[in-house]
Amino acid sequence: MMLQGSVDSSGSRFSPLVVLELASDTKEEAIAWLLSRIRDKQQNGGAELLVEQLGPGAGAQEKENPNMFLVGATQQRLLSGAEEVGLFKEFNDGSMRGFTCANKHNFTDFKGDGDSFLSMAECQYIIKHELDTLRAKDETHVPGHTQAKLYPGKSIIRRLQSKGILVQIFPLHEQEELKRLSFSWYKKVKLSFQPLDNIRHYYGEGLALYFGFLEYFTFALVPMALIGVPYYVFDWEDYDKYVVFAVFNLVWCTVILELWKRCSASLAYQWGTLSRKKAFEEPRPGFHGVLGFNPVTGREEPLYPNAKRQLRIYLVSLPFVLLCLYLSLYVMMIYFQMEGWALSIHDEDPTFWTGILLFIPSIIYAVVIEIMNLIYRYAAEFLTEWENHRLESSYQNHLVLKVLVFNFFNCFASLFYIAFVMQDMVLLRQSLATLLITSQILNQFMEAFLPYWLQRRRNKKLIRKVQKRQTLGDKELPLAEQVRLEADMSTYLGTFDDYLELFLLFGYVSLFSCVYPLAAVLVVLNNITEVYSDAFKLCRVFKRPFSDPAANIGVWQLAFEAMSVIAVVTNCALIGMSPQVKAYFPESETQLILWTVAIEHGLLAFKFILTVVIPDVPKHIQIKLARLEFESLEALKKKRQVHGGKCSKPRSSVRGSSEEERRACRY
Amino acid sequence: MMLQGSVDSSGSRFSPLVVLELASDTKEEAIAWLLSRIRDKQQNGGAELLVEQLGPGAGAQEKENPNMFLVGATQQRLLSGAEEVGLFKEFNDGSMRGFTCANKHNFTDFKGDGDSFLSMAECQYIIKHELDTLRAKDETHVPGHTQAKLYPGKSIIRRLQSKGILVQIFPLHEQEELKRLSFSWYKKVKLSFQPLDNIRHYYGEGLALYFGFLEYFTFALVPMALIGVPYYVFDWEDYDKYVVFAVFNLVWCTVILELWKRCSASLAYQWGTLSRKKAFEEPRPGFHGVLGFNPVTGREEPLYPNAKRQLRIYLVSLPFVLLCLYLSLYVMMIYFQMEGWALSIHDEDPTFWTGILLFIPSIIYAVVIEIMNLIYRYAAEFLTEWENHRLESSYQNHLVLKVLVFNFFNCFASLFYIAFVMQDMVLLRQSLATLLITSQILNQFMEAFLPYWLQRRRNKKLIRKVQKRQTLGDKELPLAEQVRLEADMSTYLGTFDDYLELFLLFGYVSLFSCVYPLAAVLVVLNNITEVYSDAFKLCRVFKRPFSDPAANIGVWQLAFEAMSVIAVVTNCALIGMSPQVKAYFPESETQLILWTVAIEHGLLAFKFILTVVIPDVPKHIQIKLARLEFESLEALKKKRQVHGGKCSKPRSSVRGSSEEERRACRY
Repeated sequence: MMLQGSVDSSGSRFSPLVVLELASDTKEEAIAWLLSRIRDKQQNGGAELLVEQLGPGAGAQEKENPNMFLVGATQQRLLSGAEEVGLFKEFNDGSMRGFTCANKHNFTDFKGDGDSFLSMAECQYIIKHELDTLRAKDETHVPGHTQAKLYPGKSIIRRLQSKGILVQIFPLHEQEELKRLSFSWYKKVKLSFQPLDNIRHYYGEGLALYFGFLEYFTFALVPMALIGVPYYVFDWEDYDKYVVFAVFNLVWCTVILELWKRCSASLAYQWGTLSRKKAFEEPRPGFHGVLGFNPVTGREEPLYPNAKRQLRIYLVSLPFVLLCLYLSLYVMMIYFQMEGWALSIHDEDPTFWTGILLFIPSIIYAVVIEIMNLIYRYAAEFLTEWENHRLESSYQNHLVLKVLVFNFFNCFASLFYIAFVMQDMVLLRQSLATLLITSQILNQFMEAFLPYWLQRRRNKKLIRKVQKRQTLGDKELPLAEQVRLEADMSTYLGTFDDYLELFLLFGYVSLFSCVYPLAAVLVVLNNITEVYSDAFKLCRVFKRPFSDPAANIGVWQLAFEAMSVIAVVTNCALIGMSPQVKAYFPESETQLILWTVAIEHGLLAFKFILTVVIPDVPKHIQIKLARLEFESLEALKKKRQVHGGKCSKPRSSVRGSSEEERRACRY
Repeated sequence: MMLQGSVDSSGSRFSPLVVLELASDTKEEAIAWLLSRIRDKQQNGGAELLVEQLGPGAGAQEKENPNMFLVGATQQRLLSGAEEVGLFKEFNDGSMRGFTCANKHNFTDFKGDGDSFLSMAECQYIIKHELDTLRAKDETHVPGHTQAKLYPGKSIIRRLQSKGILVQIFPLHEQEELKRLSFSWYKKVKLSFQPLDNIRHYYGEGLALYFGFLEYFTFALVPMALIGVPYYVFDWEDYDKYVVFAVFNLVWCTVILELWKRCSASLAYQWGTLSRKKAFEEPRPGFHGVLGFNPVTGREEPLYPNAKRQLRIYLVSLPFVLLCLYLSLYVMMIYFQMEGWALSIHDEDPTFWTGILLFIPSIIYAVVIEIMNLIYRYAAEFLTEWENHRLESSYQNHLVLKVLVFNFFNCFASLFYIAFVMQDMVLLRQSLATLLITSQILNQFMEAFLPYWLQRRRNKKLIRKVQKRQTLGDKELPLAEQVRLEADMSTYLGTFDDYLELFLLFGYVSLFSCVYPLAAVLVVLNNITEVYSDAFKLCRVFKRPFSDPAANIGVWQLAFEAMSVIAVVTNCALIGMSPQVKAYFPESETQLILWTVAIEHGLLAFKFILTVVIPDVPKHIQIKLARLEFESLEALKKKRQVHGGKCSKPRSSVRGSSEEERRACRY
């Protein structure tokens, strides 16, 4: 279904895929140079792509930026690009294989000359990759911009970004696809599975995996919710019951995570990202250092001593994080004082209003927590930026780690305090409920509706067009309008916040739901709305994000597993504290504790064994992967036996072929 | 240095590497057929190796088996074989690369036409691989042996082994090399590092890694030993001191294991096994099942339903293991009764002899434990065999697991009982000492000297020759004698028992050495003698084993880490029980326990963080590996850009090249 909707009557001679927006004060020569480099043949170190300037919009205002460029490519170029990025597609024997022009016809979906073989998302990903790997040759700086230094091998696009010459680069939406997708996704009223394959087809694997996980998590919660309801309905206030629940909790949160690994593996396999190679990572735009030679690539590139980074991490970031933790602890204490104060008032004259008053502190605290998280988030981003990581991935990991620790502490410290220091289960249940509900409402609001609303205010023109489009119904906007409209949309900053939210919800459920069984129910409801709001914001609020070929949910898997370990400990402690269990050890508390600890250790061991015993990749996929390896080994052997005995070749061809063989010897 | 010492005046026209011994009642036609298959060209599915029958020995007795065959190969064949098994060698840029005939001249050690490029061990490994992968074509059975069924693709050697037609297959020693090695290894009196590279050169990576680990472990123990001595010398009997020791223990056993990973990674890299591909594993000789098609290879092969195997494991093996554990628990209880009995006698009239008597039960117990371990070992081997695993590796893993659990339980149950149930530190120290010393003496005896002695008795002829050789000094035996002499040596059964012993010693030290600081000293001494006895038995007692290209110590790393986790728990408990610590919590024992548990959890978390933070592969090696990947990717890209745009190739060559490309897209 390639590109329908963006090819239109505005007279573009090729199907535009990606938009480059340069700063309006960019020098002519710079533009000319950039375009020539992009158009240039690959042999000459160009990207060999099609690019043209975007015509003025319908209502051409002065403030409209003229330097918008549409990038596309010929079908052939896209196919060879697909080979270059190592795209995996379904082979005619049903397995997933790295696409190669050489045997394109053996791939299932390859019809005719291969239109509609690559999804638009894939094409856009390829183009992004080609642009990113477009390298400076002998230029010392961007023509007309002497401050934008270049050296051989430097990625031009990265430099333009870091110098602010390239304002933004984003892929175009496909209106028809989008309509179809959004309809099957969130416009239907009836509850159903999400169209994961379509989502992946339109937004790429990374996002599809997020929504897959969200859905999986929701379904995994259903049994808990079902068990939780009676507790609430029949008002089983006696804490004896919650032993059952806690035990269930333990097993549950271990098993679902293990199963998810398998689940995600099979998704990643059928999407072809499971066994796909990682291309060599470029340094991230913000990265700076002394110019030197990268030991791996041998290319010229800024180097930054690792020791220095370590110092920054351990002498600045770490203390800062600890300070913040202390701060949030301090805030927590204030909260408890407020609690006590509210309680005392209520005890003086217990009216309805003072009853309400009891909830005020928790609500305030919840709001404060959200605000602190928000502020801390910016600080963390600044710090991680300042740590100057070479790779985007390690930047992300350090950021996630910082934010995770703080948010976890911030959200759960009070609950732990109540549960294990105050040992007041009523209060625990109460504040859990308040925290959960408040933070959910806040999230839903700040995540989808606030940005949507902000955007409305920020951009009346956009609205007018949106409404116009609404009235136009299926008729398309002219391309120029469409592009400018999307350029004004705000940018989707990745799945970080969405995962973080899930992580905290998972925490509420797995840690404490045994004292407030309704938590699961609330989370399920939240997740359902979450699906809709996330889907909505992706389809309506944000620019289309570039697809990233993720093979799993990455560092988040680890985070969730860490949480489930903590859950084991917490639940064991809660069980140990329950009157029911206490009753078994009337004589000595020591006995009770020792037993609890022993059982807890047993459970942890069992958990570990489970993770080892349950294979992370389903059997049938393991077999498919093994077969690929085997076949390529066999092919290699055959090739050898042809020139088997005689080990003499022209020395010229030595290197090339050696590369092949070596590659074969690498797994 | 290739093959000197085994080429001699006995008129062999090629350098023999490996010996095949067929049963003396093997049919002539079978022999003829086998030899022809081995000699046949590879294109015709042969192994293309040189093979000839061994002439009769000097003192040709009747009972001498005539069916001994020497296998060798031409230099060219060996080189192409080296390429086939994916041998890694040093490239002239200092990195390790998969050897290829195509650019053999770019490898550092490749001189002239490549004699002495491959070590004899490597040549023997190659020949073994070629023989193992020699497959039946259309034969339905081994000629003359109708019971030895064959089917297309079945490994001939495996079938001959499983039918007892092939008695044994072993590589030849090189006398001169062996002399040189054994001199630098254990004949020197002065303590020094082992010649690991020579060991690897002669015995292969697997064994070299074992000795590397043994050495590393010994050195890692030295600090503990040093700290331990004063405890013993100044007789610091008050248990207060051992808190210090326990804390040291904790840190120590976590750190050394992490560092070992790096150590072994760099060894494996410089030996070229780190990034070497695993060849596809053949089913092990014992494996049986219904003939079907392997889903991976598509070859005909016996299949055995996994479910059935699982049933056998969980319904038979598991209960059996548990039963044995119960049994050893029972024996333990008897031991404690004996203890009490001895103690009572000693209390009645404390003389020197009754003082001796106190040690008797422990000694008996230690002996009994050794015996039980031995018996259990056979049972475990039988059971694991019966579980009918397809791969040697998974067979090994299941065996290791079974044996580990039992031995651990058998050796440490009593100590745990004394430490935590009886809480009698004096007894703990005493029985620890006894166990340690007794088991060490037993091990040293049963490991090296017993087999040596048995062999002497079993084989007077051998002895005579050995002595003759001794007197002859450097002069060599004629080949025929030499081969027969080695054929009679007993077979080295792999590093299993050696690792197991280290594992238990590691346990003694890391778990309890804080109450008996001398343990470390004893273990160090033991390890030193261990080096010598192991070296001796490998050089003198056993046949030369085939080298296996191991990249790490495999499942044992996991086992040692598990032990170190248990050590954390144990030491924390011991600390918690120490009077010194108890003194801090005079008021409530509960407090004490809670604190202990909290600290223990903290330590476990810290341990986990350490394992994550410390990279398993040293930076400089990571870089080298990354460079290899990068280069091959670049080479691939260049190749593409040549036929970049035009995606049209003759369909005939499609498959082959697709294989290459796919291979490249696999990492």
